[in-house]
Amino acid sequence: MTFKLSDELLEQIEQLVADRNNSGLLQILNELHYADIAEIINELNLDEATYLIKLLDSEKTSETLTELDEDVRERILKNLSAQEIADELLELDTDDAADIIAELSEERKKEVISHIEDKEHAKDIVELLRYDENSAGGLMAKELVKVNENWNVLTCVKEMRLQAEHVTRVHSIYVVDDNERLKGRLSLKDLLTTSTQTHIRDIYIPKVDYVSVTDKAEDVARVMSKYDLEAIPVVDESGRLVGRITIDDIVDVIREEAEKDYQLAAGITRDVEADDSVWKLTRARLPWLLIGMFGGLGAASIITGFQDALETYPILLSFVPLMQATAGNVGVQSSAIVVQGLANNSIKGEILGRLAKEFSLGLINGLAIAAIVLLISHFAFGTSYLVSSTIGLGLITVIVNAAVIGTFIPIFLDKRGIDPAVATGPFITTSNDVLGILIYFTIAKVILGF
Amino acid sequence: MTFKLSDELLEQIEQLVADRNNSGLLQILNELHYADIAEIINELNLDEATYLIKLLDSEKTSETLTELDEDVRERILKNLSAQEIADELLELDTDDAADIIAELSEERKKEVISHIEDKEHAKDIVELLRYDENSAGGLMAKELVKVNENWNVLTCVKEMRLQAEHVTRVHSIYVVDDNERLKGRLSLKDLLTTSTQTHIRDIYIPKVDYVSVTDKAEDVARVMSKYDLEAIPVVDESGRLVGRITIDDIVDVIREEAEKDYQLAAGITRDVEADDSVWKLTRARLPWLLIGMFGGLGAASIITGFQDALETYPILLSFVPLMQATAGNVGVQSSAIVVQGLANNSIKGEILGRLAKEFSLGLINGLAIAAIVLLISHFAFGTSYLVSSTIGLGLITVIVNAAVIGTFIPIFLDKRGIDPAVATGPFITTSNDVLGILIYFTIAKVILGF
Repeated sequence: MTFKLSDELLEQIEQLVADRNNSGLLQILNELHYADIAEIINELNLDEATYLIKLLDSEKTSETLTELDEDVRERILKNLSAQEIADELLELDTDDAADIIAELSEERKKEVISHIEDKEHAKDIVELLRYDENSAGGLMAKELVKVNENWNVLTCVKEMRLQAEHVTRVHSIYVVDDNERLKGRLSLKDLLTTSTQTHIRDIYIPKVDYVSVTDKAEDVARVMSKYDLEAIPVVDESGRLVGRITIDDIVDVIREEAEKDYQLAAGITRDVEADDSVWKLTRARLPWLLIGMFGGLGAASIITGFQDALETYPILLSFVPLMQATAGNVGVQSSAIVVQGLANNSIKGEILGRLAKEFSLGLINGLAIAAIVLLISHFAFGTSYLVSSTIGLGLITVIVNAAVIGTFIPIFLDKRGIDPAVATGPFITTSNDVLGILIYFTIAKVILGF
Repeated sequence: MTFKLSDELLEQIEQLVADRNNSGLLQILNELHYADIAEIINELNLDEATYLIKLLDSEKTSETLTELDEDVRERILKNLSAQEIADELLELDTDDAADIIAELSEERKKEVISHIEDKEHAKDIVELLRYDENSAGGLMAKELVKVNENWNVLTCVKEMRLQAEHVTRVHSIYVVDDNERLKGRLSLKDLLTTSTQTHIRDIYIPKVDYVSVTDKAEDVARVMSKYDLEAIPVVDESGRLVGRITIDDIVDVIREEAEKDYQLAAGITRDVEADDSVWKLTRARLPWLLIGMFGGLGAASIITGFQDALETYPILLSFVPLMQATAGNVGVQSSAIVVQGLANNSIKGEILGRLAKEFSLGLINGLAIAAIVLLISHFAFGTSYLVSSTIGLGLITVIVNAAVIGTFIPIFLDKRGIDPAVATGPFITTSNDVLGILIYFTIAKVILGF
């Protein structure tokens, strides 16, 4: 049943647009979900895309806009008048409307807002624009169902019916006091089985999960997925109910968070996708490559510094790539486990305990690898006992060191309030590369005495 | 409002368990969500944990069991009789019950199932155990609300009331024919505003998203998050409605999928956490380190092969770490973007087009880095023009090669039905390391003619 965008469908639609065959287009598009229409429009050129957007009825257009790739949406919005954009926003929930409007220039923003007919809706959108997009305030919508604790059941049901018109999925009925402060929630069953004159304050459930408007998006995601919540109310500094976050927005947060960590670990600094332009991809990738380059040049100057000594033991140089690769790999493994543990809140206890654990882990891995390398280097490369000991001891030290550093740096950054994910990937690889080579040659110097 | 497990709380609970102070314990635990109780129990020793589990009322126990760490749960279940486990399963939805029972030995499984009182529930659980845990069948629950298209509204409402007792959150009412085949869904509003004698077949909505029981979990996640669904029905090969998947299970799938890709990219082969034992962590990490080790030994033999020639140009060796680090970094970047694009379904079009794009990207990055390195190597290391050209040309070739390989391998694996995520991390780093060094020396041989 899954929609799959085929080249045939795309060609058919392009042809229909070229023929200005509106009924043919609508026949196809009306059968499709707006997320599928967005997928089609992402692949069209700007004129075709704008044509389709203007052809669709307003509700479908607005939902489609929310699903488009950001750069495609940006170009289409430039092709629409402030009035046209304002009309689309009217169809959207406040959170989606705020997300779209946030992408416009300051001037255009004001213009569009002034064209929104429903002043209440406009006010809500302006309020949402105030919040950081990575906070609970940036995720929440103003649409929700709330009742006053002092109402009776009859008033409550009447008011709820009015409010529910603006809310796609109700999920929960929240109870507030006269100052709009969140007091609890109401079970639909209790509401329906109680006499109409009963006061809400006598039947509501005072226990309700909530988040604060300034909470970070990833913390909201953690709470909602831990407690399997489909919606959570948001309160401001004085405990007033100001909005509601639904699980579909959290799914996006979880996905983006995971993708960001993964990209950082792979040495990609910006949020890019495979489809982005070569230039955008270069800007995301070059910075980490430059860090790696300076690491490589650092390693070059270390090796050059030992040049004279190395003339006596040229075989030592053959094992530099081994030291470097091992140090990099161990560092990435250790840091990835710590970064993931920090993201999951599963790292507890003392930092010393963790370092001791990584130390023993490094020692076990180091001994295993050193033993194999010793055998191979001795028999395949015919290294002397002293050189073999240098390589073996070098490997063990380099591995233990990389494991400890890979653990320490993310924990340190996290304590300083810096996203520990930046410490994975090229950063940890590069520093371990250079340090690994330095350790190796220092050990060689001590053992071989040059 | 978020619960935070403190050392004080833990000590207090341990003391209360030691004192066998049940009322004190229940006073604390009754205030907590089962996910929080699970967090506490994860930190206790087996005797304390079993004591708490037996103390809680059955509903809270069963929900707590679903939230425990797998290894903690395994040990606690060993401490419970088959009858005790069966009683807990009765309280759970079929999907959660099946997940727990799946962890038992074959013999114990049978014993527990035979002790489940509700035979219908037991039958449903046995059915769910048949499916692969990473498929729609492995995710779904049997609990759902379904009505027959031939019923009238009155029968329908009566039947729904009975069914809804077993369903925590209704989400959707599904419509089936006499053969249990999924026909569509019913809007609650239509149901309530139609006369009681109307037949369901005249009012249901035939358009409904669904997945097949054999669909992969990650595909279900993609569909549900693309279409913002909170629940999706599952059908078998003949289109019969057999279960339902809710969004909370999908949130876990998305998180686990992202963590798995991230761990693979970091060179960790099994699903491990920071808290796991040193031995378990070693088994997850050593395999990739061994691959890296063989790569390093391969590089060593390449360098040794060029040893004579290198006596004339020892400076070439100083730049080996630079070649290696750059090749590894570029390869990881390219493969990460492709792997993520494949996971998101955002990679379309020809493989040749992608390779051409990576080729030009590699060329741009390569030229930029080569230019900087040329300047630095000439002035800081005093390399001759020929050696400088070797280094510069080597860097460009190595970068382009790594970019192309990093793109090609994941796409190739994906076409073969192998998870492309295995191609990221140490695998791509190691192959690019070795290849990079080989390319570098080959270019040196051509230019410098040794």
